[in-house]
Amino acid sequence: MVKRFLSRGYDELRQVEIIPHYYPHGDGSCFVKFGRTHVICAATIEERVPPFLRNLGTGWVTAEYGMLPCSCNERTDREAVRGKQSGRTSEIQRLIGRSLRSVVDMNVLGSRQIKVDCDVILADGGTRTASITGAFVALHLTCQKLLKNKTIAMSPITKHVVAVSCGVVNGTPLLDLDYSEDSVADVDSNFIMSDDMIIEIQMCGEKRPFTESELDQLLVLARKGRDELIGKQKVAIGG
Amino acid sequence: MVKRFLSRGYDELRQVEIIPHYYPHGDGSCFVKFGRTHVICAATIEERVPPFLRNLGTGWVTAEYGMLPCSCNERTDREAVRGKQSGRTSEIQRLIGRSLRSVVDMNVLGSRQIKVDCDVILADGGTRTASITGAFVALHLTCQKLLKNKTIAMSPITKHVVAVSCGVVNGTPLLDLDYSEDSVADVDSNFIMSDDMIIEIQMCGEKRPFTESELDQLLVLARKGRDELIGKQKVAIGG
Amino acid sequence: MVKRFLSRGYDELRQVEIIPHYYPHGDGSCFVKFGRTHVICAATIEERVPPFLRNLGTGWVTAEYGMLPCSCNERTDREAVRGKQSGRTSEIQRLIGRSLRSVVDMNVLGSRQIKVDCDVILADGGTRTASITGAFVALHLTCQKLLKNKTIAMSPITKHVVAVSCGVVNGTPLLDLDYSEDSVADVDSNFIMSDDMIIEIQMCGEKRPFTESELDQLLVLARKGRDELIGKQKVAIGG
Amino acid sequence: MVKRFLSRGYDELRQVEIIPHYYPHGDGSCFVKFGRTHVICAATIEERVPPFLRNLGTGWVTAEYGMLPCSCNERTDREAVRGKQSGRTSEIQRLIGRSLRSVVDMNVLGSRQIKVDCDVILADGGTRTASITGAFVALHLTCQKLLKNKTIAMSPITKHVVAVSCGVVNGTPLLDLDYSEDSVADVDSNFIMSDDMIIEIQMCGEKRPFTESELDQLLVLARKGRDELIGKQKVAIGG
Amino acid sequence: MVKRFLSRGYDELRQVEIIPHYYPHGDGSCFVKFGRTHVICAATIEERVPPFLRNLGTGWVTAEYGMLPCSCNERTDREAVRGKQSGRTSEIQRLIGRSLRSVVDMNVLGSRQIKVDCDVILADGGTRTASITGAFVALHLTCQKLLKNKTIAMSPITKHVVAVSCGVVNGTPLLDLDYSEDSVADVDSNFIMSDDMIIEIQMCGEKRPFTESELDQLLVLARKGRDELIGKQKVAIGG
Amino acid sequence: MVKRFLSRGYDELRQVEIIPHYYPHGDGSCFVKFGRTHVICAATIEERVPPFLRNLGTGWVTAEYGMLPCSCNERTDREAVRGKQSGRTSEIQRLIGRSLRSVVDMNVLGSRQIKVDCDVILADGGTRTASITGAFVALHLTCQKLLKNKTIAMSPITKHVVAVSCGVVNGTPLLDLDYSEDSVADVDSNFIMSDDMIIEIQMCGEKRPFTESELDQLLVLARKGRDELIGKQKVAIGG
Repeated sequence: MVKRFLSRGYDELRQVEIIPHYYPHGDGSCFVKFGRTHVICAATIEERVPPFLRNLGTGWVTAEYGMLPCSCNERTDREAVRGKQSGRTSEIQRLIGRSLRSVVDMNVLGSRQIKVDCDVILADGGTRTASITGAFVALHLTCQKLLKNKTIAMSPITKHVVAVSCGVVNGTPLLDLDYSEDSVADVDSNFIMSDDMIIEIQMCGEKRPFTESELDQLLVLARKGRDELIGKQKVAIGG
Repeated sequence: MVKRFLSRGYDELRQVEIIPHYYPHGDGSCFVKFGRTHVICAATIEERVPPFLRNLGTGWVTAEYGMLPCSCNERTDREAVRGKQSGRTSEIQRLIGRSLRSVVDMNVLGSRQIKVDCDVILADGGTRTASITGAFVALHLTCQKLLKNKTIAMSPITKHVVAVSCGVVNGTPLLDLDYSEDSVADVDSNFIMSDDMIIEIQMCGEKRPFTESELDQLLVLARKGRDELIGKQKVAIGG
Repeated sequence: MVKRFLSRGYDELRQVEIIPHYYPHGDGSCFVKFGRTHVICAATIEERVPPFLRNLGTGWVTAEYGMLPCSCNERTDREAVRGKQSGRTSEIQRLIGRSLRSVVDMNVLGSRQIKVDCDVILADGGTRTASITGAFVALHLTCQKLLKNKTIAMSPITKHVVAVSCGVVNGTPLLDLDYSEDSVADVDSNFIMSDDMIIEIQMCGEKRPFTESELDQLLVLARKGRDELIGKQKVAIGG
Repeated sequence: MVKRFLSRGYDELRQVEIIPHYYPHGDGSCFVKFGRTHVICAATIEERVPPFLRNLGTGWVTAEYGMLPCSCNERTDREAVRGKQSGRTSEIQRLIGRSLRSVVDMNVLGSRQIKVDCDVILADGGTRTASITGAFVALHLTCQKLLKNKTIAMSPITKHVVAVSCGVVNGTPLLDLDYSEDSVADVDSNFIMSDDMIIEIQMCGEKRPFTESELDQLLVLARKGRDELIGKQKVAIGG
Repeated sequence: MVKRFLSRGYDELRQVEIIPHYYPHGDGSCFVKFGRTHVICAATIEERVPPFLRNLGTGWVTAEYGMLPCSCNERTDREAVRGKQSGRTSEIQRLIGRSLRSVVDMNVLGSRQIKVDCDVILADGGTRTASITGAFVALHLTCQKLLKNKTIAMSPITKHVVAVSCGVVNGTPLLDLDYSEDSVADVDSNFIMSDDMIIEIQMCGEKRPFTESELDQLLVLARKGRDELIGKQKVAIGG
Repeated sequence: MVKRFLSRGYDELRQVEIIPHYYPHGDGSCFVKFGRTHVICAATIEERVPPFLRNLGTGWVTAEYGMLPCSCNERTDREAVRGKQSGRTSEIQRLIGRSLRSVVDMNVLGSRQIKVDCDVILADGGTRTASITGAFVALHLTCQKLLKNKTIAMSPITKHVVAVSCGVVNGTPLLDLDYSEDSVADVDSNFIMSDDMIIEIQMCGEKRPFTESELDQLLVLARKGRDELIGKQKVAIGG
C-alpha cells in the first residue's frame, strides 16, 4: 500500500484552490494551487491574429509556460539566460494552448487572440495539469470581460476543460501525483478532459510498458478528479 | 464511408517497407517507407554518456529528428537557418527517444550512448510513427554490431517497439492516416507499442472532444497495425 | 503639491513587507513587497566559483533578475521566447550583484558562489530597489544556514544593504516612487546604501538636467528610507 | 601513379546520374549522384523578392545547403541543434546561388524568387559540385513549369551551368575527387562552368602553393568534365 | 600621494583631442582621444523612428557601442562571434543614448532617428566618457548637415553634453582615471554633465562604501573636467 | 579606356602603407592602407590549440574579420547586434586563416595558436586583400617576438603571403579595384600569392562568364601587384 503525504487517499486530489482575479490589472487571471504546486495564470487579449489566420475573421488562443528558477527543489537554469526554451517547456505550452482551443468557438471569438501565461511559482509535480486548470479560469474571466465590454455578443467558450495526472506507483493507481510520487511512477499519464468527454490523453510507460487494463483504471480516477476540478472552476468563475 | 487512397481498407496500413543497412558506413541504419512517407534512420554509438549519468555505468539512448525543407507539399523553413528547432520537432525527437529507451536495458548497454537520427525525406503524414518504427531497426542493427564486436556480451534490447497512428475521420475510425486524412481528422492518436503491451498513448481531439468508446475502437486498430509492423521489423533485422 | 496614492507623504515609503523563508526548500528566500511591487528573492549556494576566481580560495555573489510577462500593466514579451535578456534586465541584475558583493567578505565566504534570483511577480515601480532589499535578506538567511551547518566559521556579511528610489515630480522631491510617479518624473534616482554610507548612486535626468541642490534634497530622503528599510530587514532576518 | 576506386582513369568522372522529378510535389526537383555522393535538389517558386529588389520588376535565385548528420563517415552535429549554419555551409550555399544566378536573366524571370534546396543524403567528396550540377536541373524544370503555366513568356535560363572538382594528388592531376582523394590532395579546385566559358574558379593550395602550369592542367580536366556533365543535364531536362 | 602617468595633476584631464569629420562619407563623425583611449564616433540619419514613436512626429537618438577585440591589453572575445552583446556593452550604449537624448529637442528633430556608433579602437580606461563626449560632436555635426540641407529649420540641440570619470584611489580623489587607476580605485564614478547642470551620475563603491563628502569632492573635479571638455567640443564643431 | 581615381594606371596599386606596431600592447600588429581602405591587423598568441590538434604537438593559425558599421558609405548593421556573423564575414575570415596557414610550418610553431584580428576601419573595396596582406605582417611580428623570447628556436614562417584583387571593368583588366570599380566589374578575382607561386585563386563572373584568356591577363596583373606588396611587407617587418 502506498502511503501519501497528509494521508491522502489513492483517489484523492491534493488540496486545490483557485483564486480568481489575482492581478489588479490585466484581462483575466488566477492563482491556482494543487497542494504545493502554485501557478499564476494570466490572460491577455491581443487585437490581432497569427499570420495563418489573417483575414479569416476567426480567433486564436495560445499559451506560454515558464518556471521560476527556484520553484523546484533543485534550481533550474533560467531559460532567458540559456537563450531558449527547453523542449519540455515548448511541449507543455503547446499542450496548454491545444487544450484551451478545444473548448473555444473561434468564429465567436472573432479576429483576436487570447494568450495565457502560466508561470510556476512553486513546483511539486503536476505543473502542467494545474496550469491547464487555471488557464481555463483566466480565459473564462477574460471572455466575461469581452462580453461585459460588448466586444463580443456571446461567450466563445463551449465547455470546461481541466487536466489531471494519474499514475501507477508500486502497482497502485494514484490520482494527482506529487513530485515524490511522479519521480518513482512506473506509468504516468495526463488526462485533459471536458465536462463529459476527453480532450487529450498522454500516457507513458518510460519505466515499463503498461496494459489496457491499467489504462482503464487510470481513466476511472481521472473522471473522479475531473468532476471535482470542474466544481472548483465553477466557484472561481462565479458560475 | 471514407474512401482511401489506393482503395485501402479502414484497418489497413499503407505499404510499409524497411530497407536495412541504408548507409554503407555508420553503426546501423535503415530507410523506412510508410506509403509516401520516407525516413532515413541512422544510429551512432558514442563512447560517453550525458552528464547526469556520469560514473553510473549505465547507458542512454536518444534521438534527433528533422525534415528536409521540401519534403512536404508546402516548403517549410530550414531549422538551421531559423536558428532553432521548432516546438514540434523537439516534441517528436523527445518521443522517439523515450520510446526507444523503454525497450533498452541501460545496465546491459553499459556506459555509452546511442543516438538515432531520423531524417524525413518525403512527408505524407505519420512521420513520427515511421521514425519510431525505423529507429528501432537502426538501434537493433547497432546492438548487433556491438555484440559482434564483443563490446557487449548480450543484447540490451528487451522487446520490439513500433508506432502507429489512428484517427477518426468523418465518424470512421481509420488506421495509419496519411496527410490528407490527418488534416481533416476529428480525433488523432499515436500508439507506441511493444510486443503485447503499450508504451505510450497520445490521443488528441483538437477539433472536438472524444469518448472512451472511440479510444477503445482505435486501440483495436492499433493492435492490428502493431502486429504487422513488428513482422516487418523482424524481417529487416533478420530475426 | 503632488498627491500620492493612499495619501502617502512625500517622504514616506510605500507599505514594505518582507516575508522570510518564502520557499519550503532552497537555501534562503523571501517575498518582498514595496506596495504593489512584489518580488520573490531566492538564493542558491553553488560549490564552485566563476573561472576568474578558480584556485584563489575566495567566493562570489551574483544575481539574476526577471519579470513575469503579466506583472506590468502592459504585458511584456517573455525573454525566454525572445531568446535573450534585454539590456534593462542585464543592467538590473548586474546592479543587484554589485550591491550584494559590496557587503560580503569574499575570503570569509570561501570558494563558493551564492546566486540570488529576483523574480518580479507584480510590478508597480521600484522593482530594482525592492529586489536589492529582498536579495540581501535571502543572502543573509543563506549565510545563516552555512553558519549553522558549520560550512563557514563566521558570517561573511559585513553590513546591511538596501536600495530606495527618489525622484523629482512636478518640482517636488519624493521618496520611493511608484510607477505612476516614476513615469512622469523629471529626475529619477536609485540609492544603494549600507548602514551609514553609500554604495552606489544612479541619478538621471532624462527629461531635463538637474542641479546639485536637487541631488542633496534626494539624499536626505534616501537616508530616511534607508533607516526604515534596514529596520524591516532586521526583523525579517531575526536580527 | 594514383590508383582510383573502381579503376577510374585520372580524367574520368565518377558514375553520374541525375533523376529528374524526384518529388511528386513541388516546383522542380532531382536526385543527383556523383558516385557515392547523393544530393536531393528541389526548387521552390516564391512570388516575392528580397527587400533590395522590391519594385524593380526583376527576380532572384538563391540556394540553401544542408547535410544529413549521418551522411558522412563521421557523424556531424545537426546545424538546427547547434542553432546556426557553419561557415562552410554558408560558403557553399552562397556559391550555389551565385552560380545559378550567372545563367538566369532576372528581367525575364520577373518579380519572383526561386529558392533551390540542396540536401546531401550521402557524402563522399564533391558535395558542392554535385549540388550545383543538380540545382541547375531543378531550376530548369521549374522554369519549364513557369513557361507551361504561361506565368512567363520565355525561359530566363541563358546557358547550362555545371561544377566539377579537380585536384593534384601525389603530383597527379585528377578529375572529380572523391573523399579519399580530396583529403590528401596537395591542391584542390572547383570549376563552375557554362557551355564554353568559366563562371567561377576556386583553387586552393592549403598544403602547398601551386604553379600556373598546374592551373592549366586542371583547366584541361575541368573542360572534359564540363562537357560530360552538360550532356547528363540535357538528358535529365529532356532537352 | 598618487603618482600619475606623464606627471599629470590629480585634477587634470588626460590629453584630449577631438578630430571632426573623421570619415570622408557619412553624416557626422569624429575621432576622439582621451590619452590612450581612442574612439571613433559616427552618426547616421535614418528617415524612420522606432515603433513606439510612429505617427507622433517626434524623433529619436540612440547609440551603439563596441570595442575591437585587441583594443585592450588582454584580447576580449568578439561579440559578433559570441552571438550577443555583453551586459557591459548594453549598459554603456544605453547610457550614451540617454545622455544624448537629454540635450535634443525631439519635436524639432522631427520624425527621424539619429544613431551614433561609438567604436573603441584603443582602450585605456574611460571608454564610455570619451564615447559620450565624442558622440555629442558627431551628433552636432549631423544636425549641422540637416540644417544646411534645410531638412530642419533650427537645430534640435539645446546644450552641450560631456562625460568625465572621477574616482578615489588610495584616498586621493582623481579626475579622468586611466585603466591603471580605474582598476585599483576604491570608488569610481561617471558624471554626465551639460553646460551648468548634471544629466546623470553613476557612482559606485564596489570595493567599499563611500561618504557624502567624497561625493562632493568628486563633483568639484567633475565640474572642472566638464568646462575643459566643452571647450574642446566647441573647437571641434567650429562653434 | 577606364579612368581611375587619382589618374591611377590600369596596372597600378593604390597607395599602400603598412604601419607596424600599431598597438602599444599585444603580440604583433599593424595598420594597413590600400588607398581609402584601412584595416587594423592584430595578432594574439594563445597557449592552447583547437580540440582537433590536442596532443599532436602542432600549432594553428586562425583569423577573425569585422567591419565597423560606419566604415562603408552605407552603414551596415552591427553583427554583434544581429547576433551572428554574416556569410560574407565568415567566408572572408576563413580565407584569411587559410592563406596564413599556407606559409606557416605548424610543427615549428609548436602547440600554440595565433589568432589574427582584422578590423576594417574604412572600406573602399579590397578589404580582404588588405586584411591578408596586413595579417601576414602582424603574424610575422608575432613570430619575431616568440623568437626573441626564445619560446621557439626558429621562425615557423616559410614564405611571404599577399593578396590582390583584379577585375575586368568595361572590358579593361584592372589591378587592385576600389569600391567604385568593384561594383561595376564584369569579372572579379582575388589572388592570394606567395613569393613565386599561387596560394589561392577566387575568380568569379557573376555578371557574365569569362574566358581563359581573361584569366591569363589578370594573372599578369596579379604578379605585378604581388611583387610590390611583398616589398612593402619587407619594409614593415624590417626584413
